[in-house]
Formats: sequence, structure tokens, C-alpha cells
Amino acid sequence: MAGNSIGKLFKVTTFGESHGVALGCIVDGVPPGLTLSEQDLQHDLDRRRPGSSRYTTQRREPDEVKILSGVFEGKTTGTSIGLLIENTDQRSQDYSHVKDLFRPSHADYTYQQKYGIRDYRGGGRSSARETAMRVAAGAIAKAYLREHSGITVRAYLAQMGSIVCELKDWQQVEQNPFFCPDESKLEALDALIRDLKKAGDSVGAKIVVVAENVPVGLGEPVFDRLDADLAHALMSINAVKGVEIGDGFAVVSKRGSENRDEMTSQGFKSNHAGGILGGISSGQTIIASIALKPTPSIATAGQTINTAGETIEVETHGRHDPCVGLRAVPIAEAMTAIVLMDHLLRQRAQCGEQQPHAYFK
Amino acid sequence: MAGNSIGKLFKVTTFGESHGVALGCIVDGVPPGLTLSEQDLQHDLDRRRPGSSRYTTQRREPDEVKILSGVFEGKTTGTSIGLLIENTDQRSQDYSHVKDLFRPSHADYTYQQKYGIRDYRGGGRSSARETAMRVAAGAIAKAYLREHSGITVRAYLAQMGSIVCELKDWQQVEQNPFFCPDESKLEALDALIRDLKKAGDSVGAKIVVVAENVPVGLGEPVFDRLDADLAHALMSINAVKGVEIGDGFAVVSKRGSENRDEMTSQGFKSNHAGGILGGISSGQTIIASIALKPTPSIATAGQTINTAGETIEVETHGRHDPCVGLRAVPIAEAMTAIVLMDHLLRQRAQCGEQQPHAYFK
Amino acid sequence: MAGNSIGKLFKVTTFGESHGVALGCIVDGVPPGLTLSEQDLQHDLDRRRPGSSRYTTQRREPDEVKILSGVFEGKTTGTSIGLLIENTDQRSQDYSHVKDLFRPSHADYTYQQKYGIRDYRGGGRSSARETAMRVAAGAIAKAYLREHSGITVRAYLAQMGSIVCELKDWQQVEQNPFFCPDESKLEALDALIRDLKKAGDSVGAKIVVVAENVPVGLGEPVFDRLDADLAHALMSINAVKGVEIGDGFAVVSKRGSENRDEMTSQGFKSNHAGGILGGISSGQTIIASIALKPTPSIATAGQTINTAGETIEVETHGRHDPCVGLRAVPIAEAMTAIVLMDHLLRQRAQCGEQQPHAYFK
Amino acid sequence: MAGNSIGKLFKVTTFGESHGVALGCIVDGVPPGLTLSEQDLQHDLDRRRPGSSRYTTQRREPDEVKILSGVFEGKTTGTSIGLLIENTDQRSQDYSHVKDLFRPSHADYTYQQKYGIRDYRGGGRSSARETAMRVAAGAIAKAYLREHSGITVRAYLAQMGSIVCELKDWQQVEQNPFFCPDESKLEALDALIRDLKKAGDSVGAKIVVVAENVPVGLGEPVFDRLDADLAHALMSINAVKGVEIGDGFAVVSKRGSENRDEMTSQGFKSNHAGGILGGISSGQTIIASIALKPTPSIATAGQTINTAGETIEVETHGRHDPCVGLRAVPIAEAMTAIVLMDHLLRQRAQCGEQQPHAYFK
Repeated sequence: MAGNSIGKLFKVTTFGESHGVALGCIVDGVPPGLTLSEQDLQHDLDRRRPGSSRYTTQRREPDEVKILSGVFEGKTTGTSIGLLIENTDQRSQDYSHVKDLFRPSHADYTYQQKYGIRDYRGGGRSSARETAMRVAAGAIAKAYLREHSGITVRAYLAQMGSIVCELKDWQQVEQNPFFCPDESKLEALDALIRDLKKAGDSVGAKIVVVAENVPVGLGEPVFDRLDADLAHALMSINAVKGVEIGDGFAVVSKRGSENRDEMTSQGFKSNHAGGILGGISSGQTIIASIALKPTPSIATAGQTINTAGETIEVETHGRHDPCVGLRAVPIAEAMTAIVLMDHLLRQRAQCGEQQPHAYFK
Repeated sequence: MAGNSIGKLFKVTTFGESHGVALGCIVDGVPPGLTLSEQDLQHDLDRRRPGSSRYTTQRREPDEVKILSGVFEGKTTGTSIGLLIENTDQRSQDYSHVKDLFRPSHADYTYQQKYGIRDYRGGGRSSARETAMRVAAGAIAKAYLREHSGITVRAYLAQMGSIVCELKDWQQVEQNPFFCPDESKLEALDALIRDLKKAGDSVGAKIVVVAENVPVGLGEPVFDRLDADLAHALMSINAVKGVEIGDGFAVVSKRGSENRDEMTSQGFKSNHAGGILGGISSGQTIIASIALKPTPSIATAGQTINTAGETIEVETHGRHDPCVGLRAVPIAEAMTAIVLMDHLLRQRAQCGEQQPHAYFK
Repeated sequence: MAGNSIGKLFKVTTFGESHGVALGCIVDGVPPGLTLSEQDLQHDLDRRRPGSSRYTTQRREPDEVKILSGVFEGKTTGTSIGLLIENTDQRSQDYSHVKDLFRPSHADYTYQQKYGIRDYRGGGRSSARETAMRVAAGAIAKAYLREHSGITVRAYLAQMGSIVCELKDWQQVEQNPFFCPDESKLEALDALIRDLKKAGDSVGAKIVVVAENVPVGLGEPVFDRLDADLAHALMSINAVKGVEIGDGFAVVSKRGSENRDEMTSQGFKSNHAGGILGGISSGQTIIASIALKPTPSIATAGQTINTAGETIEVETHGRHDPCVGLRAVPIAEAMTAIVLMDHLLRQRAQCGEQQPHAYFK
Repeated sequence: MAGNSIGKLFKVTTFGESHGVALGCIVDGVPPGLTLSEQDLQHDLDRRRPGSSRYTTQRREPDEVKILSGVFEGKTTGTSIGLLIENTDQRSQDYSHVKDLFRPSHADYTYQQKYGIRDYRGGGRSSARETAMRVAAGAIAKAYLREHSGITVRAYLAQMGSIVCELKDWQQVEQNPFFCPDESKLEALDALIRDLKKAGDSVGAKIVVVAENVPVGLGEPVFDRLDADLAHALMSINAVKGVEIGDGFAVVSKRGSENRDEMTSQGFKSNHAGGILGGISSGQTIIASIALKPTPSIATAGQTINTAGETIEVETHGRHDPCVGLRAVPIAEAMTAIVLMDHLLRQRAQCGEQQPHAYFK
């Protein structure tokens, strides 16, 4: 019950510490017959990898994933898939100075209090390095969703600090290190990151995930609603402090007459709901937003306590992202894909594969 | 896997439709020896009940809960607790006009598409009436949390439309029908509700939940983090479109140097994190916010389709809240209490009942 | 995690004590569109009911089940189904004498030690009365299995004491109070029961469950094998002390050359395996056997202790079956149906509804 | 939901095929602070390993297990533990002849039908090789049980073919390759194995597992009873066809007056129940027996079909055990330890760590 698993039918269980021997996961419930290779997983891992640009941490991990089981002659067999990434750049010595203190706003303090012991090297299990296996598992989900029903899951940077990036061009997202969909904002983003590095500071970000071609009918009332499961999966990403579906918090000041999504025989007239009604996908595009806090690992001095309970000054130097939100783009996609995959299987279990009725023309 | 259960060790499973015979639930995993009576549950049910003020729907249900098992001579026995509320005000005929259409922004369309059949009476299973059992189950969790470790879970209305209500006075929250903690806003809230009724419209709301005296150590990395499980539970409430922990979306434009919660030997200097670090409770007050959409059941005409796929006009008259967010206060408390209770048991399972170390003076 | 649930996709959760207000259960995961009425459940409940013959306990409970949700206009809707049986014959006073002692070989002692409290009336939660809800839930599974793929699940009495009953005639099973498939043994069984009543004693029984028309492919390696899940479900029935699949313990002294089930293009040549290979149904008839202990509630005096830890004499008079195994026939069917139903949904989730290949002519 | 996990709080998830790259597992829910090294796991792996004597298959795998995470400076940290065993003796070519046929009484046919694809090399996922990871995970459970409450779990060979071995000496069990507790039977066992090898045949076995010092109170009524969970875990071992608790099938012909376990102020007078009452451990020694079928991989020719559906003759030569039951001894211990560990945590979650009442003198 130590919660290292997610999903009920498409179940992902992970292990691994930042500076341990290896990271790994088991993906259970993958349908048989899916074409799958290590290359399919590597693409998203490379998108997430630190050191892939000067904007993210310079730690260099090839993050090369190996498939250890569950694939035979290029196809999944229906048995559990074991994945492994060896940690090749461990440098344990780098982190000896954090052994006896609790970095502020990190998990150091809570892990120590919960377990009475912690692997202090690079944050141990609480490090965002753990998300590499989420991305690998998510890539399997993405592959199945695409092949099975044409579902695509993509994300982009919607805001960094006060710079808002509108969804102008999906192509652009993969062409810049910010996953920014608006070319006109690249210069401002670049300047902000430079300023932050100089100031030894960091900044928050907002990421938007978009899932297209999702069939109507995914989601299980009343607790395992699709939006509730998305909220769970997205909030489980390191540094995430908020999740919105569709219009999110903007609905607070809206009236029913402006917020409802009317329908006509041609289809929905709007998508304030973000593609989910009553916890079930409506067939519209699913839209979710997440807020990521600025990393507290900064070069600006701040107060904290050591393990003797004394107040001390701390500042973090080294290989840290000024905006951890940037690397969250492939992670948010992965978590969304895992949830959709799980619900696709759940829907099939309870309701079979019957086609929805064509109410719209 | 039809998701009518929540919680892993403290597990709540519900059934019941808006206009069916009865609502019920089974609460499994309640520790033995807890003093419990129907009165303990009734208090929160009465707070949630429709018809308790002129601001909420005038449907009159006594919502009288019966404990059918698991309590013997006033104490829980450790066996599963069955709860039942009979539906006494069913009036099925009221809803015959919705049989052949899909109300916009309701679950009518998605239930029909998912299952190929739906109980159209009052929304059937998708009705917010289902939340009565959540409140009853949550009251059991609240009772245990209070008795076991002094944890309290309370919520209040933080915003309705554009009226922001600050947390000035917890006493006030229980003294007005809006669960508003700021007496100076009562008049404005009252005026807004009157206006909405006159206009046949509705409005959104923001609710804040506050859990105090939560011990450090609750939450299970990496997927079943306390914040992730709260997000799941809160997003599963009808009409919720966003969940924030601590500063939530405000972190997007913040710098690390302003957002981090520094520590000294006296304790934390701030609580931007909302009481959760690395997915584990920090011992600080837990703060979560939710956004509830304005109900689409309004008297203002709008377009939708009927089951023949034809565009039609619809307007909803009758017993509906202009602000469903009001009734969400006890529901949000219940869901939060259920999650905390579950994690209290999970923490005890893995780590025993050892006391956290006293790092602070 | 207090284990009152069984099944993962077809999930049954029960509550209720022997002398409480009511028994109930929630059946979650029932596919939509199944024709279902209370009469469908009542048939098996009547087969299980005490007092249905002079061979079983004379407690008179009509055991009338009510469907409280999840069925609309005679069809299941895909939402959770609430079932309720009110306890009408409670007679709490009958059991006051067991309040302060632990009946030998009953759960009195272990419940008291585990929970520190127990509902001593009629065994409380540990009473076999709890199995009424299993039978009701199993009847839903049976109905779906029959409608969906012609699967039938039946059981019979294979042995009582030293009287072995061979499967000669399924018709006969429903025509005598022993569920005995061999008419020639009825007299001996009747004589044995009379002797036991006179002697104030009881006897064990062996029940065999047979599931026919089970498609090949049900079961999930490596832990949730079909045989492992059957063993779990059958061993969870009160008084069961052993479970066998196919030839069971007879395989210990067999050679591989005699025990293997050879195949030809016409099909399997034998069925020592009992219809399951590698944890997956083979398409052959599934056969499972269970051993039920003689009830320890007998009129013959024996030693036990009271709650003061003193040795005392105890003998149980009143409404008790001399062979509890008799009533286990519908319960064993129900548990088997629940497991098959769960795996039918699980198979559909992971592998879809594709037809198996026709290897046999 | 592809069932590669077992346990709810102490959860073991495995992957790996007989001739794949590696076997692995994730053990989640291990309490923090347990002293653990690879050597602790290796001991039981060596007991299970093929090729450890001339009585078992001559396949030579060092089966060297690596701990990849969850242990820091020799202690468990409370995070998930990744384990890995690389397959060093794969020899895929050996198995090319089974590609196009279904070995009788193996899982070849059912895997092919369930998934439409199978890794035919050495049985793929259905191979008993998978149990290596169970043994490794079980060794963690054993270590905790021993340290936490002195619980020991041991097993022995109780019968091979018609040779019955009585529990005369636990020491002897570890001193002969048969795990036989009766030195006087060693010669007969040796002769039987030689005969079988000569005859190209195999034989079944019965293994008995004994857990001592188990505290009263483990087990969760009504479905997750300790005996039901043991039955599940033990039946999930390859080749197991029957499970008994305590007297097992012998109860069928017993009377209540002889089968009940009377109590006095000194304790229980007998242990027919095998240490479990009402699904909850009684504090007595837990005794479970399992029947393992003779392996169908024998050198004696038999009929089966090929993938074209044609009847063919098959005989299996090579590295196979004449009695697979021998290797099941450490596996049965492991599965029992996993179940006890899971229930120890579950008991702690719901009921805390309070000591049972001392009713006995």
C-alpha cells in the first residue's frame, strides 16, 4: 500500500532512487499483440531527459531504457513488462552536504519523519528522476491508444512566470526547448531563464495537456471519474500544486448560462467542460492544466534546520533547473495517457466494445 | 471496477440513484472500539441537506440515516458498516420530460453513451444526491480522526461569483446558510442569490478545506501522495473543475525564493505548500481549494439535442440550487476526512505508531 | 482493507451480522443491459435458506431480498447494485448465554482477540448467515454468465461422513434436501442425519462444483490464476478446510504419464486438470471440490473457556444443522460464479472479445 | 489487472520469462528500518535453484539476485524494493521444437488461446522459473516476520508418490535434497527418483507448510480470511492442485465431537483447525498442505496437437525434474510468508499494535 502503483487495469509500479543502482517499473495489463520496441519508449525519455538543453539541469544520464520481459519478437505478449534504466551518473559524493539538513520545501523533512530513515542522495525516492519510468510506461500507453483508437495526448507550456504562451502551433512545441507553442514568446522565455540563472532563482510554470480523439464513455462514476483520476495522476507529479479540467477555476465567477456547453444536432457548441461530463468523457477534446511550483533548489540563501534541530542557512548550487515545469511536459502527457489507457480497458471490461450511438450528424 | 469505491484501508462503497428506493453505502476498515451513533452522522447530513434554507433546492428529504451493521452496543466492532437512507420524496413523474433529451452540461449524454441505458429520473446515479452517503461516511472518518489524534476538517465558502469571502471567523461559517466565514459579505451573497433566482441563472463557487492537527507523515509516495489522493477525492465531487493545494495556481508566476517555506528551529516560517511536501503531510495545516461550476440546470433557455438527435430548446424549472457550491462544503470536508483517515491507517500499517521526532523547539 | 470485498471488476462487498438489523451488499461492475429482477435472486436464496427442510436449522427467515439500485425498468444500468435482506427473526435473547464464553472451534475467541470487541449474538459477523448475500450476488453473476456465454455453475453433495455420492443425475440434485446426485444414497443420508440429531453430533461434507461451457482463456497469470482465485473464494466460505481443482490431492501419488491430459485433434482425452492449465481455463469443464468441517455447535458437552479465562463445559442446543455442508451447495456455486464473472470481465478488458482459435475439429 | 501482483499492503509484483533477459520484482510496503542484504535473499534462492542436486533439473542458473532500490546503508527505507535476476543460461535454441505444438498439460495451449501469442521458449511466463522472484520476495517477508515477532515459516516434503514422510526432525529437512524430515525415508525417495528417471516419468508430491509463533488476530473476514488468502497464494504456485488447512479433507468423514478443538485455561487441547478460526489466526501453529501434480514434461511419448490442429506424438527430453514438488518447498514457504506479512500489516492498520488479552494461563 506504499503507493508505488497507479492504474487498475493498466497498472504501473515503479522503483528506484535518484542515486541508486537503477530505476525500473513493471507495466501490467498491456494487451497482447501491440508492436513495441525500446525505441518507442526512448523518444519520450529523450524529451524528458535532463541535459537535453542548456535550460535544464546539466546532469547527464543517457536514460537508456531496456525492456526485460513481456515483449516477444517485437510484440507484447500480454504478460507483465519489466523496464529498466541504469543510473550511470550517480556521483554520490556530490550530495554528502545534504545528509544532515532538511532542504526547505523539499521532501527531506517529511521522508525523514515518515520513515525515520531516508536516502539523502539527490532526494532519493522523492527526486523527479523517478518520473523517467512514468514517461517510459506512458509511452506504452500512448502507443496503444494511438494504434487502438487514434487517441493522441500532447502537452505544452502555457505559462512560465508571467509569460503566457498561447496554443498557436503544435509543430512549434517540439522545436524549442521550452515546449512553447508560440514562437513569438521564445525570446522572452530565454531571457527569463537567463535572468533566473544569474539571480540564482527559479520560477513556476503552467502546463496544458490535450487529448484528442478520445471516445465518449471513458470514466467510472462515482469516484473513479475520468477527471478525478486525471487529477490524481497529474497531482502526483513532483511540484504540481493545482489541477484544472476545462475552464477550471474560471468557473467560480461564471454564470450557468455562459458556462454550459450547449449541444445541437451538429455537436457541442463549446467545451468549457474540457471534454468530461459527469466524470465520463464526452467525445470532445480533453483539456487539463497543471501548476508547477518553482523549484526550491536555488542558489539564493534561505533558512532551514539541520538534523540537530538548529536553524542554518542553505543555498543549493549545481545541476538544477530554473524551471522544473519545462520537463513536466512529457510527464504530464505520460500520466494522462496512463489514465486514459486504464479507463479504455475498464470501459471495455464493463461495457464491451460496442460503438457509441451517432447522435450527432 | 465500476468505480463506486474510494479509499484503500478506509474504504467507502456507495450505491443509489436520485429517485431510486434508497441510497446506501458500506464503510469498511473502521477500527474497532469507536463510539458511534446515527446522531453522529446526522449532523453533517443535515448540513448538506437540500431544503435546509431558501438558498438551496426545496426538495424535502429528511435524509435520515440508519446504521445497519458494524456497531454493537454503541461501539464499532471492526466489521463493515452498512448505512442506508431511504428516498421518501421520489416524485418520479416530475422528471418524465427529461426522458427523451440530454440536458446540456449534464451527465445525461455521457451515461447514455457509456452504458446504452440510463435512469433519467433526476439524473439517476449522476445526481448530487449520491453525495449524501459520502457525507455520512465522512462523518465516521471525522469522528475517528478527532478521537484518535485531534484532527479537525472544516471548510468554508471562499468565493461565489465575484464575491470573495475571507476566513475571518470559523464560528460564523455555521451560522449562515452560505457557510461564509465573513459576516460582512452575507448581504452581498444574499442579493446575488436573489438576482440569480430572478434571472433564472446560477453561479460558480470556490470552497476551501482546512485540516488542522494533521500529524507529519501521512501520504504514500510516489503515486498515492496525500495531495494526489486529495485531488482525486475532491475532483470526484459533482461540478468540481479544479483543485489546488496550498497556493495552487498562484505558484506559476512565483519565484523559488518567495514560494519556498523556510524552516527555523521554531518551525515553518510560511505555508505556501498547504501542509504537504513530497506528497507527505508536513505537520502544518493542510489547505485545499476547489472550484465548482455553476449548475447548468437553469431556467434560461438553451439548446440541446433529444434522443432522436434533433436540436431543441430546454430550460429547467423546479427545485434547483442557484449555487450548488454551497452544498459542497460538508461534502468537501467528508472527502478530505476520508482521504486523511485512509492515510492514517496506511501510515500505521507501514510505519507503526511511532511518534515523529521533535525537530522543532 | 477489512476484507469484506471480493472480485476486482465484478466486485461484491457485504455487510451484516447474524442478529443485526439487516444484511446487505453492493455488487459493482455489473454490465449494463442485463435483465434482472428480485425473483432471479430469490431462487438461490431459497435453496440456501435455513428451515427449508427438516435436515437444516429450523430458524425461519424469509430471506427476502430487495434490489435498491442499479436496475431500471427491469435492466441493469451499469451502476452499483444495492441489495438488502432484513433480519426478521432476530431473537437476541436466545444467545445471551454465549456472551461470556468462547464456543470451541468457533470464531468467538479470534474475533474477541482481533478486535477487542464482538457482537456475540449468533456469531455476529462470523455467522454463516452472512453467506446469504454471497448467494444473492452470485445469482447476478450466474444470470450474466448464462446469458452472455451459456456458462452454467452447479454443485452437489459428493460425500457426507463416509457416504460417498457419485454424480449420477443432475436432476436429482434439486429434488432432495441433501443436493445429492445419487438417489440410492438418500436413505443412508437420511439415517445418518437422524443418528446425528439423536447423538447431538454433527458431520463433515464434501461438495463438488462444476462449471460448464466456460470459454478457454479465463484467468490471469501469475498470481490471479483462475484456480488460485477459485481457491480463495471457496476457502472463504465458512467451515471450508480444503479446496481441490480437478484430481486434487490424488495427484500426489500419480505419475506424469497417467496424470497428463493428452490432446488430439478431437480434443482433450481426459480432464485430470479440472479445466484449468497454467491458471487459465482450457475450455474443458471446471471441477472444484471443497471439504467442510462438521459444525462444532453440538449438543455433546465439551470444554472451553469463559471470558475470565476459566475452563467450563459447554454444549449447544437449538437450531443448528447437523451438517452445515448441505447448505454450502448454493454458496459454492455463488462463489464460483463470482470468480468466473470477474475473470470474464478481466479477460475482456485485456484481450477484447476475440474468439479463440478453433484448434479442435 | 493482469494478475502479476499479490498482497495488498505487502505487495509483490513480478515480471520475467523463462528465457527472457531477466526476472524481476517490486516489493512494495516493506516497513522502513529492516536490516536487509542480498545475502538474506540468496539463501532461499539457492534452496530453490535448479541444479542444486542430481534430483532436480540440471539447468544451471546462478540465480544471483540484485537489490536495485529501497535499501540504503543496509536498511530498508520504506520505498519500493526492486529485485533483479539476470538469465544467464538462456539457450533459446533448445526450445525451438516446441514452437509449433502444445505440450500436453502445460500452459502452452491456454496462453496461446488467451493472448493469441506466446513466448514458447521454455514455457515463457508460465515456467516455474518465475517462482524465483517469489522466493526472493518471500525472503524479505520472512526476515521481517522473524525480526518483528519471531514468526517462522518452514515447509517439508510430506509425501512423494506413495512414500509418506512424517515430521520427525526439522534439522533433517535442510540436510537432504528432498526436504524430507524423516531420515528413514531417504533411501526410498532416492530409489523412486532413480526409477522415474529410468522410466522417463515423473511423480506428484505433497508439501506441508508450518508457521509458528503467529500471533492471534491475523486475517480479515469475510473474504480476505487468512485461510482464504493462503489458499490463493499456495494454489497460485505452478502445479498445485489442492490446498488444505489443518486436517483438510479428513474433516469430511469426521464428527463435530472429534473435530472440534476444545479449550481449557491452559490453552487449546488440539489443533484440527490448523491455527485458523473464522478466518483469523488463533495463536496456534498454522499448518497448510498442498498437492503438486507430477510434471507432464516426461520422456514417455504421449499425444498432443500442433498449431495446425493435427494430432502428434510428443516426448520431452532434457533438463526436467522428475518431481517438481521438491522445489516447491521454499516456494510454499515464501508464499505463506508473503500472506502472513500482508496480514500483519493489515492487522496493524485496522487494530493498531495492541497486545491480545492473555486468556490462557
